[in-house]
Amino acid sequence: MRVLILGGDGYLGWPTALRFSARGHEVTVVDNFVRRRWVEGVGSDSLTPIRTLEERIEAWHANPAGNEIRSFIGSVEDGEFLDGVVAEARPEVVVHYGQQASAPYSMASREQAVETQHGNVIGNLNLLFSIRDHVPECHLVKLGTMGEYGQPNIEIEEGYIEIEHKGRRDTLPYPKLPASLYHCSKVHDSTNIHFACRTWGLRATDLNQGVVYGIETEETAGDERLITRFDYDEVFGTVLNRFCLQAVIGHPLTVYGSGGQTRGFLNIRDTLQCVELAALNPAEAGEFRVFNQFTEQFSVIELARLVKQAGEHLGYSVEIRHYDNPRVEKEEHYYNAVHTKLLDLGLRPTLLGEELVESMIHAIERHKERAIESSIDPRTRWAPGTPVHL
Amino acid sequence: MRVLILGGDGYLGWPTALRFSARGHEVTVVDNFVRRRWVEGVGSDSLTPIRTLEERIEAWHANPAGNEIRSFIGSVEDGEFLDGVVAEARPEVVVHYGQQASAPYSMASREQAVETQHGNVIGNLNLLFSIRDHVPECHLVKLGTMGEYGQPNIEIEEGYIEIEHKGRRDTLPYPKLPASLYHCSKVHDSTNIHFACRTWGLRATDLNQGVVYGIETEETAGDERLITRFDYDEVFGTVLNRFCLQAVIGHPLTVYGSGGQTRGFLNIRDTLQCVELAALNPAEAGEFRVFNQFTEQFSVIELARLVKQAGEHLGYSVEIRHYDNPRVEKEEHYYNAVHTKLLDLGLRPTLLGEELVESMIHAIERHKERAIESSIDPRTRWAPGTPVHL
Repeated sequence: MRVLILGGDGYLGWPTALRFSARGHEVTVVDNFVRRRWVEGVGSDSLTPIRTLEERIEAWHANPAGNEIRSFIGSVEDGEFLDGVVAEARPEVVVHYGQQASAPYSMASREQAVETQHGNVIGNLNLLFSIRDHVPECHLVKLGTMGEYGQPNIEIEEGYIEIEHKGRRDTLPYPKLPASLYHCSKVHDSTNIHFACRTWGLRATDLNQGVVYGIETEETAGDERLITRFDYDEVFGTVLNRFCLQAVIGHPLTVYGSGGQTRGFLNIRDTLQCVELAALNPAEAGEFRVFNQFTEQFSVIELARLVKQAGEHLGYSVEIRHYDNPRVEKEEHYYNAVHTKLLDLGLRPTLLGEELVESMIHAIERHKERAIESSIDPRTRWAPGTPVHL
Repeated sequence: MRVLILGGDGYLGWPTALRFSARGHEVTVVDNFVRRRWVEGVGSDSLTPIRTLEERIEAWHANPAGNEIRSFIGSVEDGEFLDGVVAEARPEVVVHYGQQASAPYSMASREQAVETQHGNVIGNLNLLFSIRDHVPECHLVKLGTMGEYGQPNIEIEEGYIEIEHKGRRDTLPYPKLPASLYHCSKVHDSTNIHFACRTWGLRATDLNQGVVYGIETEETAGDERLITRFDYDEVFGTVLNRFCLQAVIGHPLTVYGSGGQTRGFLNIRDTLQCVELAALNPAEAGEFRVFNQFTEQFSVIELARLVKQAGEHLGYSVEIRHYDNPRVEKEEHYYNAVHTKLLDLGLRPTLLGEELVESMIHAIERHKERAIESSIDPRTRWAPGTPVHL
């Protein structure tokens, strides 16, 4: 299968490229390395010493499982560039990770909000036209987020909900309450993709992903040169990854508010499983399919307690500290999200437990001297004028 | 009241500016005249010979009802410019018409789709930041469209719907099935504005407007120099305006497909009433309010028959012709949309009938020699490769 991976230098994009390549698919990656620059721009860096894309690809070729990976350097926002890549690579599946994926980044200023919405929405819109014009049978696998739904007081379904209203009935897009301007951009993408499927007959799967944690995947584990990036700062780090790093370097676990915020989570290894399952089982022509891509629900405080327990078993002294919440969000709420479609396709979840956290801590220990502690405490506020007491 | 009108040189923006000015409000308008250029770019022109903004404003000052109107020339996409305008004008209400408003324009090419979504979404996002940072108490009156909802098989509510699901209940944003990439951009705007209200406590009213028809308003009727633009081409003309012009110049009425497409409609005079009612009755801080702004529902074929009847009473020979539908849309569908909130605020509808159509025909007759017939037949197709037989 010809697989095009947009954002193929990223935390998930790179391991995804290796996974498809290891399975014998023809992989092409696109990236412009802006994520590397953004993270440096907020005063942080990947904990893992990631190689350049060129070095990574070379190392992969030398690997027994490795096949050729082609790369194109450029931005999905550049419609001409992307159109040329799609026309040349003629993908049967496009996996689209090539977006600004941090909620705090999108909330820091007007400029960053505009950068996020412009880059994500226009990049994705460019892609829809390129698929329509060059490879209309291609299956678009788009990374969405569970954060598109927000925290409604009813069960979250997978993309659609059947509504009975005043004696009539229809199945309609599930209403969205996105949690940041980044999350809004993903809602916009879903709206555009759904329209393209209805109107142009494109086929797409929106993977509304939960919060990802973990470092290693099957393909990256054996060779340090193949390791993927690992962010732990307040802007680009996700919560469980942040907590594990904090436990190792002796920084208090940064719980925002009460920590009652409940979300869906999944291991990075399961992200690869899910994307592969979606690709191997494509949507029908004209179908816009939505999968809720996570394996377990946790509250933030539950995760903090789990990391504290695992850290203490390994001899670390771990403090849980409640920070004034820099975000505008509910801290106690109903949350129950359906996530059966990927299980039906064969997903075998990697469940989170103390042992898994301990293995993450061990992986972090190898690079702990690279941690930049000043990037950890929450600074990005959702609403200006709200005091944050550290 | 200090009123800032974005898109104040347009079909609705200009008469709205006059209405607020005639009522004694302090009016500032912003425009970059791109609508004039777009219409020329598709080979058409306003049927009415509209004056430059400068000339219009001068003529208005000379009018007995006239007060000073300030103007700023620039684009809402330019965040620095818009921020400066908002900081200086310090509006108590912003009426935001400053967007690309044609569905066919947005569907003609990737470039035009990107131009539409970039301009509309980023312009509106810039505005939200400027309001937040300079005039957080200001009421945003945003023009949305009934086309955001599409044609669901259940009754369309005003912005929100109460859903009972698996024994729980919530009131959530009404699901959207937008009809073009332009309509998608308006859904994106609604999502962003709702987020800004929830997160920053802004107050906003989204006016989901139906299809507007008509030429004259109370303030523009007496002085040719104050007349507003009138578009009838296949890209920027709306259906009833197009039909009236077609009747006058002897072109067949261009019904797309069966003409069973049902939509909400309103007179341009009622647009002004609605915007004024919204402005005089602002949303609460943190409230994102949605009004369905139309007065009557019609199918396209009903309107064609009405125009044929009125035209023939005035001595014109009017042919109704069914064209292969250039759009991807349902031609026969359930359609029933609630529209009581503006009536509750005091809207007195101007109802459509033969007499009103005859008055539109008379207004068109005065400028019929300006009509460019080659711009009328449908050329812009929703899906490439779909043959359109004219």
